[in-house]
Amino acid sequence: MVEIINIGDELLIGQVVNTNASWMAEQLSLSGFRVHQVTIVSDSREHILQAFTEAEKRVEIVLISGGIGPTKDDITKITLCEFFNTRLVFNQDAFDAVEKMFARRGYPVTELNRQQAELPAGCTGIPNPVGTARGMWFEKDRAPGEKTIFVSMPGVPFEMKAMMTDYVIPWLKKIFHTPFILHRTILTQGIGESFLAARIADWENGLPGNLKLAYLPQPGIVRLRLSGTGNEDQVRLQTGEAVAKLEQLIPDYIFGYDEDTLEEIVGKLLLQRNATLATAESCTGGYLAHLITGVPGSSAYFKGSVVAYANSIKESILGIDPENLKNFGAVSEQVVTQMALSAKNRFKADYVIATSGIAGPGGDTPEKPVGTTWIAIATPEKVFASHYLLGDSRDRNIRRTALQALNLLRKAIRQDK
Amino acid sequence: MVEIINIGDELLIGQVVNTNASWMAEQLSLSGFRVHQVTIVSDSREHILQAFTEAEKRVEIVLISGGIGPTKDDITKITLCEFFNTRLVFNQDAFDAVEKMFARRGYPVTELNRQQAELPAGCTGIPNPVGTARGMWFEKDRAPGEKTIFVSMPGVPFEMKAMMTDYVIPWLKKIFHTPFILHRTILTQGIGESFLAARIADWENGLPGNLKLAYLPQPGIVRLRLSGTGNEDQVRLQTGEAVAKLEQLIPDYIFGYDEDTLEEIVGKLLLQRNATLATAESCTGGYLAHLITGVPGSSAYFKGSVVAYANSIKESILGIDPENLKNFGAVSEQVVTQMALSAKNRFKADYVIATSGIAGPGGDTPEKPVGTTWIAIATPEKVFASHYLLGDSRDRNIRRTALQALNLLRKAIRQDK
Repeated sequence: MVEIINIGDELLIGQVVNTNASWMAEQLSLSGFRVHQVTIVSDSREHILQAFTEAEKRVEIVLISGGIGPTKDDITKITLCEFFNTRLVFNQDAFDAVEKMFARRGYPVTELNRQQAELPAGCTGIPNPVGTARGMWFEKDRAPGEKTIFVSMPGVPFEMKAMMTDYVIPWLKKIFHTPFILHRTILTQGIGESFLAARIADWENGLPGNLKLAYLPQPGIVRLRLSGTGNEDQVRLQTGEAVAKLEQLIPDYIFGYDEDTLEEIVGKLLLQRNATLATAESCTGGYLAHLITGVPGSSAYFKGSVVAYANSIKESILGIDPENLKNFGAVSEQVVTQMALSAKNRFKADYVIATSGIAGPGGDTPEKPVGTTWIAIATPEKVFASHYLLGDSRDRNIRRTALQALNLLRKAIRQDK
Repeated sequence: MVEIINIGDELLIGQVVNTNASWMAEQLSLSGFRVHQVTIVSDSREHILQAFTEAEKRVEIVLISGGIGPTKDDITKITLCEFFNTRLVFNQDAFDAVEKMFARRGYPVTELNRQQAELPAGCTGIPNPVGTARGMWFEKDRAPGEKTIFVSMPGVPFEMKAMMTDYVIPWLKKIFHTPFILHRTILTQGIGESFLAARIADWENGLPGNLKLAYLPQPGIVRLRLSGTGNEDQVRLQTGEAVAKLEQLIPDYIFGYDEDTLEEIVGKLLLQRNATLATAESCTGGYLAHLITGVPGSSAYFKGSVVAYANSIKESILGIDPENLKNFGAVSEQVVTQMALSAKNRFKADYVIATSGIAGPGGDTPEKPVGTTWIAIATPEKVFASHYLLGDSRDRNIRRTALQALNLLRKAIRQDK
């Protein structure tokens, strides 16, 4: 069993939401480790020592994040020395790694970096693939042949995540024999949680007892996670069968599995067909282009985007007919269709997504409330537009529009074979 | 001092991020209560009892959320009975409140609602303005004239929040005399944590003893939080003086305070000047436009963006000279400057940001490694370009480029008065 200890006054005044704990808990859980408790403590020596002492009584793995950056409010390292009755020693490897990273960027190494390369004697340094502070791995005898593992990591989320993924979880799995557990996540878009639950109720009730289902809703996406325990071969077979049945039941809503993203899947489909994509965005304001270009290698198929936020830009850069804007408004089937066709022409792209909507707050009319959204998709053969009525939240409307648009495009590309 | 105990297995497998704790901590902190620890425990009688017993030793206020909904996995209430050595009794007030709420919505009252109206004898029921489960307020003698307060609330965020705001915090303030605490967060961009720390070391060492400083780094941004305790007037004066000194020390890096964002600040500056903005993006791929249009009301100053991802689009839509692309490459001072000037012309905008860089992975050359980035800013009077060498991570290079660009724009607008 694991206890997660997050150190940081910023967590105790609510300035930062503790996403580290939930991410760590999820990763551990997926690897078959059970998280027993999460404890947030202040940047105080006494409090950290108390938490270590209590955790040691409860669990055999203590994962600590926070308080090992280069600045003086970071006291985890000296408190670890006290707890393990040891002292800091200069670690040449750790220093060389920082020097190398800084040399590449042309930064000078400072005295603070030298201090950061001091680690408690007796601990194993954990490389930091993306930062300057090393992690620390301690083993403490609990009983003959039994150890308690203490691992200290930075609080900066991307540093902690890289360290957990590349080192901490693989090392823990070597030491502890975790039971076999298979997770398979089915990703759906375009249907809300309660409607999805009603639609797949019979399938869910027919699942074998050793397969558990969890609904993990996010704005615009519902993830369904199947977790199976037992004999590996049997669980793989059962999971494969359950997923195959679900694919027959809701083919339009399933867009991928596990870590897939809609933008990656669309990218792969375009690459397979040697086809190109452009976007013409109003309400999504560049978010579609951002999602698409977040995928490494997207320059092979993505030509670009026009974010036509002002109507004057819709006219001047996209060539939208001013009469259409006047008669139907920017948020209309006519305008969004023309945006798609015009962008297809100007970008010389095989596929185009165009969006126009009222993300809110404000900008609404009695006929077009906040959440009114039009999406057009142009393909080599046709153009079509769809209408949606989303919610009140600007952020979520932008995200849901982009996801809906990518899923429409995915289906359109697949139909084109 | 307060301890927050969140009960729920869903928090320990990372299915849900513990936003309850950060919200509670923030509200308590703003009211002058100090949160000493946050503890997440499982839906298990033994574990809950252990957490109560340990918390009682540490603090005088224990706030519990989770595990008092209507379903069978909710065991907080019976565990509270065990801890306080009492039993459940039917509470007519609580039942009447639920009946009244359901009658308004046309729902029938169920056996579950009757069970929910049973509360431990000896506790004070806390009304739930938006749900069916009452909260529970317990007082336990700790020493002569000293009490420990235990408060149990639902885990559903909007129910917990309503109960905290309307009842729990006002009741706590009546009992405890809370010390004054002032938090002020200074937001910096463009300087890494260790360089910032070296730069402001003298200032930091000269802070009054009752002002504490914390570094809160994020990719591209370092937040500095000052927390002052003591006499309100004195703390306000001290904090104001400390911030004023810091502003003189690092004026270029400070872009705002507390909840400010760069995109909001840039938006306000543009609105004040009745000026407009456009972007021409290559490596940021629409992320700049996305940040800018995430601000409600941004359509008043943001005209739009061209995401010119392919070189052919830089030529056809932005009119970049093919000779420049050939001689200097897309990631060059010449091209990024021309992107800014061309977009200024095409969008008829007062200000333009243009970006071109190698976000990675791939696309690099010996002269231009991954992370090489050019940013150009066009203003009504001039255009200038700056060069940066960022890191290896595509996501972070995109984000850091966007933040750096917004800060350059902020400074340019301010210089224009």
